[in-house]
Amino acid sequence: MLNFDYENKTRIIFGEDTHKTVGEVLKPHASKVLLHYGGGSIKSTGVYDDVINSLKANNIDFVELGGVKPNPRLSLVNEGIKLCIEENVDFILAVGGGSVIDSAKTIALGAKNEGDVWDFFLTNKDNNGALPTSTILTIPAAGSEASSGAVITNEDKELKLSYGRENLRPIFSIINPKIYFTLPANQIANGVCDMMIHIMERYFTNTKNTELIDGLCESTLKTIMKNALILKEDNKNYEAWSEIALAGTIAHNGLLGIGREQDWASHNIEHELSAIYDVAHGAGLAVVTPAWMTYVYKTNVDMFVQFAINVMGVDVAYRDSDKIALEGIKRLKNFFREMELPLRLEDLNIDDNKLELMAKKATNFESGKENLLGGVKKLNWEDVFAIYKLAL
Amino acid sequence: MLNFDYENKTRIIFGEDTHKTVGEVLKPHASKVLLHYGGGSIKSTGVYDDVINSLKANNIDFVELGGVKPNPRLSLVNEGIKLCIEENVDFILAVGGGSVIDSAKTIALGAKNEGDVWDFFLTNKDNNGALPTSTILTIPAAGSEASSGAVITNEDKELKLSYGRENLRPIFSIINPKIYFTLPANQIANGVCDMMIHIMERYFTNTKNTELIDGLCESTLKTIMKNALILKEDNKNYEAWSEIALAGTIAHNGLLGIGREQDWASHNIEHELSAIYDVAHGAGLAVVTPAWMTYVYKTNVDMFVQFAINVMGVDVAYRDSDKIALEGIKRLKNFFREMELPLRLEDLNIDDNKLELMAKKATNFESGKENLLGGVKKLNWEDVFAIYKLAL
Repeated sequence: MLNFDYENKTRIIFGEDTHKTVGEVLKPHASKVLLHYGGGSIKSTGVYDDVINSLKANNIDFVELGGVKPNPRLSLVNEGIKLCIEENVDFILAVGGGSVIDSAKTIALGAKNEGDVWDFFLTNKDNNGALPTSTILTIPAAGSEASSGAVITNEDKELKLSYGRENLRPIFSIINPKIYFTLPANQIANGVCDMMIHIMERYFTNTKNTELIDGLCESTLKTIMKNALILKEDNKNYEAWSEIALAGTIAHNGLLGIGREQDWASHNIEHELSAIYDVAHGAGLAVVTPAWMTYVYKTNVDMFVQFAINVMGVDVAYRDSDKIALEGIKRLKNFFREMELPLRLEDLNIDDNKLELMAKKATNFESGKENLLGGVKKLNWEDVFAIYKLAL
Repeated sequence: MLNFDYENKTRIIFGEDTHKTVGEVLKPHASKVLLHYGGGSIKSTGVYDDVINSLKANNIDFVELGGVKPNPRLSLVNEGIKLCIEENVDFILAVGGGSVIDSAKTIALGAKNEGDVWDFFLTNKDNNGALPTSTILTIPAAGSEASSGAVITNEDKELKLSYGRENLRPIFSIINPKIYFTLPANQIANGVCDMMIHIMERYFTNTKNTELIDGLCESTLKTIMKNALILKEDNKNYEAWSEIALAGTIAHNGLLGIGREQDWASHNIEHELSAIYDVAHGAGLAVVTPAWMTYVYKTNVDMFVQFAINVMGVDVAYRDSDKIALEGIKRLKNFFREMELPLRLEDLNIDDNKLELMAKKATNFESGKENLLGGVKKLNWEDVFAIYKLAL
């Protein structure tokens, strides 16, 4: 285990009807709120009305900014920053999924710092503060409700980059599994894949002696897969949604990454797909991650054997590490298939035209300062290119 | 799963040599510190000198109060409160195990509230604030380094009571597994038992659909047992200590109790032993908990079957729920035996003289307002008496 320094100040308020308490919980923190959200779904489900009613009942002044799209755009973020400054907003409430939350965090950052907020994503420099944020989650997937990071797409530059600091962690997040009952099957599948890969990016490591956290990762992954299949048949199953919702938060609140080197190659490789082809992040991960696993497993075959046995239930009697590891990857793909996730780039309508370009962009190759990706195996642009080709 | 509201603001700084950074980490929080500790062990191990050097290097003013004993006493707490007020202390640093930390939390409470601090433990009333605290842990066991509670013994009244509020959670806790290398075998065993029972008090519940947290509990319990046996043979094994140390924090930071009714009967039943006979808390739990399990398992046999199979590795082919459940309890006792923990009250030199008295005290029977203990099965004084007798 490596030394670590971990804190997570986000308060989690979980359960049926909890979103209706948002005004009460907000009141001590805020005098003027930016209510930030995406499209029309929060209006059709009634969540919007519940939130507005709770804010009004608690005499909380607010302005609104809707219109966040998946792979949230810098242009809307800049609009939000302007609005916060003009309106003297001192707190941002994000009602939505990871895209809305990440957009809110970036607005919170931009509202408290001079200059172009995009610079933080380009340079990873420290910030001088951020407005406090909170969330009402409408899809459990990204884990951003309790994470310190945000991912934003600069649509002009076709760049999707992340930035994280402890002061971007939401003050509180409200999770009501009933809100998820109306999610369509593909969003459930994408969300489940996203949270699984959040765990796997941490789980796959060359760090030795990580037994406790390994066990927590394995247990959480198994719970996600089991309950995802229940939701596929019955998307109004409150108990299955509760397990998935809580797992999505734990998957990405940082706990499962303490004391170990982490990987994150699959996320970086996927971000190029989202930036250029605007694919859903979870769907992109379902394609990229098994290809990444297949490409790197020989670097640390024992760990992939552990995954195969402890997570995917592969029988230990194979007597061949490579076979066990590959069987684990195959079963993961079978699970993705059962969830009707894409398995190959062609399922996302992506051909081989831009693969080399994306591989070079992902590793920043053209800058002359190539940035190797990953932890288990350090990947240069040619490795990334090979992984894209494996995923064709 | 039940609705829940969970936050844990304690920052965990973990790893070799981390205690030497205490001055740096403290500096932004404190102008005058009370350094609180127990007996001579932190002086013989060099931890005391490291802490003093780090405080001095960061120009942090401090006063000292040592002498905390296991089952920490109210009298020393009152002395600490007086000292904090006289010396204008604004931060308490506890260097020790659970007893020192609980003593520090109670001093922190008393220093910010008028009147007798013991009243909070007697009445569970809300408080008006508490001094901030932090810890350097010298034995992983009680989990108090990231918990919101404290347990104090009023030695005059032979009462051991707990009190908890969110504002008693330490600001940060420093965990360096190397500090544990000098712990004697019986303290290792007591600590391991304490952290296991912290999990089991949450794990055993009548709440349904608690799959994710169940899995985390089971995985953590298995990691503790495996690494405890390593430490029994090799008490300077850094990696095993790391697993145990992290498990001890996770066992009691609240995460493993979210979304479920909890039990805590074993703790309440044990507290009477500690209050009257001054036995070590972990040793008392090793005796009480299996007796409690034996007494209550029929109330929810399926859950005890799950424990037997998923934690104790009982073969599922027994075809008899009672047998599986009882085999699980037997294997837990076998583990305690292997750790050389006491298994019966007689191993603690406790006879049947005061059992009825203790059972009545534990349930507050004499007051006329009997307080039933536990969650899985609500226990009156006669149930508690029966459990004590089972443990003879």
